[in-house]
Amino acid sequence: MSEIAPPEEEPRHGDLPPEEDGQFADDQTLSPEFVRSVEDAIDAEDVEAYHGLTREIHPADVADLIGLLREEERDALIAMLGGAIPSEVLAELDEDLREDVIEAMEPAKVAEAVMELDTDDAAFVLEDLDEEKQAEILALAPIEDRLALRAALDFEEDSAGRLMQREFFASPAFWTVGQIIDRLRGTEDLPDKFYEVFVVDPAFKPMGSVPLSTLLKSKRETVIQDIMSSRDMRTVPATMDQEEVAYLFEQYNLISAPVVDDADRLIGMVTVDDVVETVREETQEDMLALAGVEADTGLSDTVFETVRSRFSWLAVNLGTAILASLVIAMFDAAIGQIVALAVLMPIVASMGGNAGTQTLTVVVRSLATKDLTATNAARIVFREALVGFLNGLIFAVIMGALAGVWFFASGWGTEAAAINLALVVGVAMIINLLAAGLAGILIPIGLQRAGADPAVSSAVFVTTVTDIVGFFVFLGLAAAVLLPAAG
Amino acid sequence: MSEIAPPEEEPRHGDLPPEEDGQFADDQTLSPEFVRSVEDAIDAEDVEAYHGLTREIHPADVADLIGLLREEERDALIAMLGGAIPSEVLAELDEDLREDVIEAMEPAKVAEAVMELDTDDAAFVLEDLDEEKQAEILALAPIEDRLALRAALDFEEDSAGRLMQREFFASPAFWTVGQIIDRLRGTEDLPDKFYEVFVVDPAFKPMGSVPLSTLLKSKRETVIQDIMSSRDMRTVPATMDQEEVAYLFEQYNLISAPVVDDADRLIGMVTVDDVVETVREETQEDMLALAGVEADTGLSDTVFETVRSRFSWLAVNLGTAILASLVIAMFDAAIGQIVALAVLMPIVASMGGNAGTQTLTVVVRSLATKDLTATNAARIVFREALVGFLNGLIFAVIMGALAGVWFFASGWGTEAAAINLALVVGVAMIINLLAAGLAGILIPIGLQRAGADPAVSSAVFVTTVTDIVGFFVFLGLAAAVLLPAAG
Repeated sequence: MSEIAPPEEEPRHGDLPPEEDGQFADDQTLSPEFVRSVEDAIDAEDVEAYHGLTREIHPADVADLIGLLREEERDALIAMLGGAIPSEVLAELDEDLREDVIEAMEPAKVAEAVMELDTDDAAFVLEDLDEEKQAEILALAPIEDRLALRAALDFEEDSAGRLMQREFFASPAFWTVGQIIDRLRGTEDLPDKFYEVFVVDPAFKPMGSVPLSTLLKSKRETVIQDIMSSRDMRTVPATMDQEEVAYLFEQYNLISAPVVDDADRLIGMVTVDDVVETVREETQEDMLALAGVEADTGLSDTVFETVRSRFSWLAVNLGTAILASLVIAMFDAAIGQIVALAVLMPIVASMGGNAGTQTLTVVVRSLATKDLTATNAARIVFREALVGFLNGLIFAVIMGALAGVWFFASGWGTEAAAINLALVVGVAMIINLLAAGLAGILIPIGLQRAGADPAVSSAVFVTTVTDIVGFFVFLGLAAAVLLPAAG
Repeated sequence: MSEIAPPEEEPRHGDLPPEEDGQFADDQTLSPEFVRSVEDAIDAEDVEAYHGLTREIHPADVADLIGLLREEERDALIAMLGGAIPSEVLAELDEDLREDVIEAMEPAKVAEAVMELDTDDAAFVLEDLDEEKQAEILALAPIEDRLALRAALDFEEDSAGRLMQREFFASPAFWTVGQIIDRLRGTEDLPDKFYEVFVVDPAFKPMGSVPLSTLLKSKRETVIQDIMSSRDMRTVPATMDQEEVAYLFEQYNLISAPVVDDADRLIGMVTVDDVVETVREETQEDMLALAGVEADTGLSDTVFETVRSRFSWLAVNLGTAILASLVIAMFDAAIGQIVALAVLMPIVASMGGNAGTQTLTVVVRSLATKDLTATNAARIVFREALVGFLNGLIFAVIMGALAGVWFFASGWGTEAAAINLALVVGVAMIINLLAAGLAGILIPIGLQRAGADPAVSSAVFVTTVTDIVGFFVFLGLAAAVLLPAAG
């Protein structure tokens, strides 16, 4: 038998992480050893070795790799690659990193890379740059691309207009499946990937959509209007916020959606792969916002950027902590006489803070997923108040008993005083957990109705309420009930 | 002109919320008025009216509607509909609601509804039921469906085997585009919707995939192997956790992925619409877990269920709050002499708690998105410690100055004592914010390495550290530095 050369094939690295190559660790992330080999190649300015190492991994993994490099190494890599990062890698970089990488690239190279991308990815790469840099790069692009990109950038950040790509496939209602397939085979200017044919009326208004799988299952002579569905299509206005777009995709299990202008004319398409990222980012932003971390920060920020981004929330928290301290200071005479109050007061405040955060987190999520709406708000407010009250009751009994025994056993007061202290702790616990439940739901709902993002500012209000109510009720009751007894 | 009847059409409610019908409010959720009309129809046991109202809304919206009903109304609705909810609505119900609805349905009706669904949706409906109920429903299903469902339920919950559907389209490598299209037109047993053709070798092992748009763009005589890509395909083992599946979809922008058994044979397909939900759920679970809320709870739980689910975290928090109180109690003599210490101590602890939560939240997210890996862990730990130290320094200056002035102005002590108090507050702040940074990153990393979910248990450890360090360092330093001066 003569030797037959194996057919030319794309490198295989599709399936499981190719453990034999050691590029990936068990958790599917790049292995430290692999990253170190790449760093060595960069240090040695060995382009060949770098390409040899990275040729077989996906652009998304190359983007992760760049995120793992130190700043000097990143700059050295860009220089070594002739001032450019491949466009497909650029589109996959994390937001906090992309800006730094593009700053380090030559404008001409950025322009070149951007032109190779679909409009949504291109706008995504350009949007974080300052206007000067943007203009510089756009000036280097061919007129047609420049106009398309300017149009994309004219839409607000986080709008459907930014998220969409201008490449899509639309058909008039009277075309047959055969005509459409013939046209698809002949047309050059199609999106890289698409999942549905949008059926439009003569005014280019979307009437319905046909999944490609339905198209493929239908006979050539079938008229597209007969297989289109309008129920499974959701038309997205270009001005819609991406959070709303993500809601539509999740609620109606969409794969792609037509984007329309003010006159309801089809101008673009949003696909689910962009939305998956939005879903994660929006939930994550809520999560970070509740903890007082700015949304667009990441591990690639410098120490100085991180200190600054965390500072503002800590400063606000300092303000509320001082407020709470002023409440404590009102009762310094009582504390001076019964030091046990200083020992017990953080417990009441802390329980309130935790209960409030529980409610707040559930409510912020329910508002985002639209499970909590005008229809059921009153019922859920009542429910949260009741839950707060009931947990307050349980912990009032537990903590009241503990405090009474502790107070009595340590010899701080008489049996009657211990019972009074137990009652004070119990009542304060009930009131604070009720306040926590109410604050945890009323504050985010109120902020949302006022047009603010409930995730961003609720937490500080809720803990202020629970701290102040906790300290005030506990110390106030203690001063009223115990001081005559102790004094 | 003779009157021409308009062509029969599916009802249009695709695009913008049909405000004229009043079904939807401005935020795309069902309007309170619409929900009230439905409730009226249920109260009047008017099936016709109910169908008239709900006929034009999407099954996902009907599911939301059911979630907005009170329990009695829900049961009345199910009874009114003859003991059944349509299968497509069943598949869209929230997890916490689905169980209640199925409990209220007759087993035979559940079996009937389940058989109409794809395997992934059917398993999804059945998985939360207890074994007895599951067996009862499965016994009513035809043997073929029963076996497929048992196989699906044999995979662990939250595994790819559960997430996948058994319906997919695969092609041998040598088929042409024309052959595939002809076969698609003739085959009955195809998935409802699919997005890619999986190319398999003779052992039924996936070799690559072809997006349907690529198939449609190619000429009939093209051999599928020549247009398939292995780079853009990721094969998913049936045992893979859904969190890992979601990671693959997001990292590599997948629309669908082949699922394989232990022998690498193609047995099913995961599609992106199931993954979108997983992405949201997994991020949301982390967010709720950090706030001490159990993942599978929702607004449809009863008050009792909610009290119970929140209780355990509050109980743990009570334990740590008591621990912190014991630390305070160690220094009761100092507080008895200088009450200002009781006023200031919550500030130091609270700042530490907030700084720790900031770091913790970023770290938990970075671990989930695999941005924080073995490769960069050491660097990021150092960075967080430095950020904590620097913010500690800033707030040490601010709070030290405030405390010193406050202490002196209120006449609690001498000028020297005020300076000493300022120093004590400052040093305690630096140490506690440094501790917060370290605890915020080392605890979740440690928990993950130990095989625990860092989102679930980190928060309590981190606040315990910041409370105890905060109180101990502040009160300890104050006792050491100020007491001799004051005494």
